[in-house]
Amino acid sequence: MLTISVAEIAALVGGEVQGDGGLACHRIGPLATADGATVSFLSHPRYRAQLDASGAGCVLVQPELRDAVGERPASVLVADPYHAFALLTQWWARQVQPAVVPGVHPSAVVEAGAVVHAEAHVGPLAYVGPGARIDRGAVVSAQAHVGRDAVVGEWTRLMPRATLLDGCRIGARGLVHGGAVIGADGFGFAPHGGQWVKIEQLGTVRIGDDVEIGANTCIDRGALEDTVIEDGVKLDNLVQIGHNVRVGAHSAFAGCVGVAGSARIGRHCTAGGGAIILGHLELVDHVHVTAATVITRSILKPGQYSGLFPFDDNAAWEKNAATLRQLHTLRERLRALEKKT
Amino acid sequence: MLTISVAEIAALVGGEVQGDGGLACHRIGPLATADGATVSFLSHPRYRAQLDASGAGCVLVQPELRDAVGERPASVLVADPYHAFALLTQWWARQVQPAVVPGVHPSAVVEAGAVVHAEAHVGPLAYVGPGARIDRGAVVSAQAHVGRDAVVGEWTRLMPRATLLDGCRIGARGLVHGGAVIGADGFGFAPHGGQWVKIEQLGTVRIGDDVEIGANTCIDRGALEDTVIEDGVKLDNLVQIGHNVRVGAHSAFAGCVGVAGSARIGRHCTAGGGAIILGHLELVDHVHVTAATVITRSILKPGQYSGLFPFDDNAAWEKNAATLRQLHTLRERLRALEKKT
Amino acid sequence: MLTISVAEIAALVGGEVQGDGGLACHRIGPLATADGATVSFLSHPRYRAQLDASGAGCVLVQPELRDAVGERPASVLVADPYHAFALLTQWWARQVQPAVVPGVHPSAVVEAGAVVHAEAHVGPLAYVGPGARIDRGAVVSAQAHVGRDAVVGEWTRLMPRATLLDGCRIGARGLVHGGAVIGADGFGFAPHGGQWVKIEQLGTVRIGDDVEIGANTCIDRGALEDTVIEDGVKLDNLVQIGHNVRVGAHSAFAGCVGVAGSARIGRHCTAGGGAIILGHLELVDHVHVTAATVITRSILKPGQYSGLFPFDDNAAWEKNAATLRQLHTLRERLRALEKKT
Repeated sequence: MLTISVAEIAALVGGEVQGDGGLACHRIGPLATADGATVSFLSHPRYRAQLDASGAGCVLVQPELRDAVGERPASVLVADPYHAFALLTQWWARQVQPAVVPGVHPSAVVEAGAVVHAEAHVGPLAYVGPGARIDRGAVVSAQAHVGRDAVVGEWTRLMPRATLLDGCRIGARGLVHGGAVIGADGFGFAPHGGQWVKIEQLGTVRIGDDVEIGANTCIDRGALEDTVIEDGVKLDNLVQIGHNVRVGAHSAFAGCVGVAGSARIGRHCTAGGGAIILGHLELVDHVHVTAATVITRSILKPGQYSGLFPFDDNAAWEKNAATLRQLHTLRERLRALEKKT
Repeated sequence: MLTISVAEIAALVGGEVQGDGGLACHRIGPLATADGATVSFLSHPRYRAQLDASGAGCVLVQPELRDAVGERPASVLVADPYHAFALLTQWWARQVQPAVVPGVHPSAVVEAGAVVHAEAHVGPLAYVGPGARIDRGAVVSAQAHVGRDAVVGEWTRLMPRATLLDGCRIGARGLVHGGAVIGADGFGFAPHGGQWVKIEQLGTVRIGDDVEIGANTCIDRGALEDTVIEDGVKLDNLVQIGHNVRVGAHSAFAGCVGVAGSARIGRHCTAGGGAIILGHLELVDHVHVTAATVITRSILKPGQYSGLFPFDDNAAWEKNAATLRQLHTLRERLRALEKKT
Repeated sequence: MLTISVAEIAALVGGEVQGDGGLACHRIGPLATADGATVSFLSHPRYRAQLDASGAGCVLVQPELRDAVGERPASVLVADPYHAFALLTQWWARQVQPAVVPGVHPSAVVEAGAVVHAEAHVGPLAYVGPGARIDRGAVVSAQAHVGRDAVVGEWTRLMPRATLLDGCRIGARGLVHGGAVIGADGFGFAPHGGQWVKIEQLGTVRIGDDVEIGANTCIDRGALEDTVIEDGVKLDNLVQIGHNVRVGAHSAFAGCVGVAGSARIGRHCTAGGGAIILGHLELVDHVHVTAATVITRSILKPGQYSGLFPFDDNAAWEKNAATLRQLHTLRERLRALEKKT
């Protein structure tokens, strides 16, 4: 069982102990299910009712709420409790995750000309192509794939069955989840006589540092130049990034987002689940796209953008949808009435 | 060539033979392409015209339709012909599918401390991590992955390249299709100084009995507690289930559905293809979401819910969509007119 | 460094040299970043401003634009420059891609009864099931999977971790990208007593010649008959094709498209990213579906069809969406006014 004292938590997150610094915490948990040996957190003052009802032995709260923690044995005052909670999960993970074992598993295939750092790990049944480079502390997990001349930066982990194809590069401290495919061909064809003639995709994918890529997410290689994912980008599962896209630093896309070819996404942008960004357009920095919204033209002003059909019970929706198909006519009728009166 | 007599079919599905019980059937097929050696079925009386036109030697029909089967040699009367058809396909599959060969293929990697039941199968190039447990009759197919301390229940099959990551558990009689990733990290980050600080995902995924999971579907591990998929759930391909989601028993989601983190889905719910359910909300039992609908708030009443833009030819859509962007103004103008008249 | 002379380019694409046929080109690139050793192309006269500004040493242009190429050393006149560019990328790829090495890698598992052509390649850690056939020039890349009795046609390439399951067949000159799953079970269940009873999927997937299938795309096997992808079809990444679907020749679907079971898609159709086509319906030849559009009924007339909610800044969208939920009522109010005046 893991143990961390309240005083150790405070030191870890840069906070101030209130109450019993020696209290031992054995779990991190949400307020609702926390007991006396659990450390929990209040991410926002609006959830204060949950705080009152929680049995957590220790809570991370903002200094302003120092009097709101109630009778519990301990609390840690910290400016950003949610960030503190993130740091605490990282400490926890370091205790429970098995250490990286340097070396190449005997069942892995590492081609001649690949360079695997002595402190890197290549797992069972993994493949590392000729000319590839696996840097210090990097992990190529079981059944993962690193193509010819591809590069895995320091401390980056490819999880089981992650795939980094020929010539693609990812920087340091990255995390690529299982099933992700980085560097498949972009979707490029010239129509010719009723058929599609393939445009070979001659670029690669370049990924910066501190990037996380979700399970079964796809990032296509560029047609002539490279597809680029800048530092600190976070992509959730089942995201599609087309060829020649550039995603600016510290942008984050939720699950099932699709970005079509040659789109240019700024820094610090976000897109909610299922959003689609069409190709050959530009989003400036700090653009936030609501879930399931389809962006069909460039956005040159920061802000939140939305466009989804509000759901309703089926009968109401059917009536409104039928009317929607005549909306233009309705406007004409309204205009006619306005002229009349 | 497989052969089943009409009498054997009737016994299998609990139906009553009408006509020649000795007739040999060599195929199961749809009404439209069936011949005299084919057994077919009428799932609903509204398709009766297809029945009349079909050359099927034997049909499964409801007792009420005993007179509608026409001149054909045989029929089987059964209360639920579609269910009977399902049972018949299961019989068929048992005849043609190769038997499970107990044992571990020599090319598989099974780590020390894993427990593989003597009657389970671990296929070529598969991986089974330390502490994992593969129960009786279970199949880990070629190139599949079972992580550290993961559990595959009795008679559950992981198809080629399916992935069950560290600590995740699936119950009995499950089926996980190729490319599915169960237990990748949930998408959790604390924003801090313009960057994203990772919240390590410390939970796992717990899956009940009789669950089917489609190809390339992703189910993320929980942040602190577990993501839970209850008994009898069916997920199609390319479905995304976020961290801490709970999907109630016997719910079914079609392809490309996305469910964001911490959503609580009831029992016997369904979602059509491409539907999106946002996070931190609740759907009670027996909620049915139409394809491509986005659920943005909790639904506390059973029923069918919809919200998709009705398609039209492009020119009509363009006019209506342009007007839609001024809909609020239209309402104001209508209101003004109403005051006037 | 690769080198191709302008005269060689003209011969390759069937064009006419203008200027210095001996000029050596070392790169193919877009007009915007081209230098004197780069061959570029003008796909459409509307981009002519880019041509004027480009430093490309050689450009591919239509004969009508022979006078528009400016001072640059050389150009190639050709009727369809975009097609010529595609041919040029193919030449380029042939120079840089490693040749196919015939033979089976020692780490691959090829089951007894499989037939691998002497000029085919089976890569590291790949799997080829019993009864499978790998034809001349075909490539089963590292960690790819070919199931029992499956067939890979001549010169077809399964990229790393592509999966062709039992009994499925792909024709000649195909390309299947990593993570694609061809032949997982279709999503078929009979509801019975509040539970789902599996309908075993007894069909396979049949794929024609010259088909490209994107990364992590899924094509399900048919329930009773086969799912069929005809010649020349191109599917992008993360596309879902349900059971019993037929996709007509030379149709192309962009990323994240979903096609539900038993849909019949004509020839030369296209669907933009994220479009959804519901099941049991028909699209005739030459139907074009706009990105993110949901097709809910058959389309019997060629043309472009659309249905997506136009995005707006969040505040404007919220007002319009709220009004949309009362649209039917608005129409009633308008009707009442019309009667009055």
